Amino acid sequence: MLTRIDHIGIACFDLDRTVEFYRATYGFEVFHTEVNEEQGVREAMLRINGTDDGGASYLQLLEPVREDSTVAKWLAKNGEGVHHIAFGTADVDADAADVREKGVRVLYDEPRRGSMGSRITFLHPKDCHGVLTELVTSAPVESTEH
Amino acid sequence: MLTRIDHIGIACFDLDRTVEFYRATYGFEVFHTEVNEEQGVREAMLRINGTDDGGASYLQLLEPVREDSTVAKWLAKNGEGVHHIAFGTADVDADAADVREKGVRVLYDEPRRGSMGSRITFLHPKDCHGVLTELVTSAPVESTEH
Repeated sequence: MLTRIDHIGIACFDLDRTVEFYRATYGFEVFHTEVNEEQGVREAMLRINGTDDGGASYLQLLEPVREDSTVAKWLAKNGEGVHHIAFGTADVDADAADVREKGVRVLYDEPRRGSMGSRITFLHPKDCHGVLTELVTSAPVESTEH
Repeated sequence: MLTRIDHIGIACFDLDRTVEFYRATYGFEVFHTEVNEEQGVREAMLRINGTDDGGASYLQLLEPVREDSTVAKWLAKNGEGVHHIAFGTADVDADAADVREKGVRVLYDEPRRGSMGSRITFLHPKDCHGVLTELVTSAPVESTEH
């Protein structure tokens, strides 16, 4: 069962400048940064609020680290903006199987590694009214920034 | 101060079909529906989770009700997808003034009426790394669907 908006994934050309925009404009601070080599991105997680399922909602700022990454291709086509949305669940395997059974294309055979040790999968945007949709089960999280 | 992801605004061609997609696929139920004549949209709010500032996070599904609405034009250009993101604040007037002072273009001189009696304004996407960004102060909310 999906119990929260886990994050909004935002693609940007320059992660440091975009992080600085969110800090200077709204006061949002970086909670975690990492490079995900498999996804081909460098990312910053900005924690916005806690959620009533015991999790939290983040902005995930994504900068491609190689030209053949899906985010690099997406940026070349669309420019900066919202790349995907992610719903949090306690059991990404079960929810991925459930939506697959309902006819929604799930992009990975098995969930892969996402931000902060989470396990993630993606649903095909053409099956989701144009929205690239991620399902995510978080690992216990701790900020890397303190 | 912005204290939550209030909603993700998703533009669609057919509200009823899109509502049914989110219900059938994920079990998300409609919390509220309304027509906002000023914005030129018919909309459904799906409540996803509560937030630790005492509010909640929603998906806001938007169908244009006239061809000259901004959402209709956006759909004609982009197709279905994420149209905007919204951050919740206790004081949209103060936050709008604050970001305007920082050089971000605020699209309304004064906040206007948003979903469920809220007061909203929008920030220019070109000043926000490509993301059309809404600031919203909610009114006390109650579902229209029970």
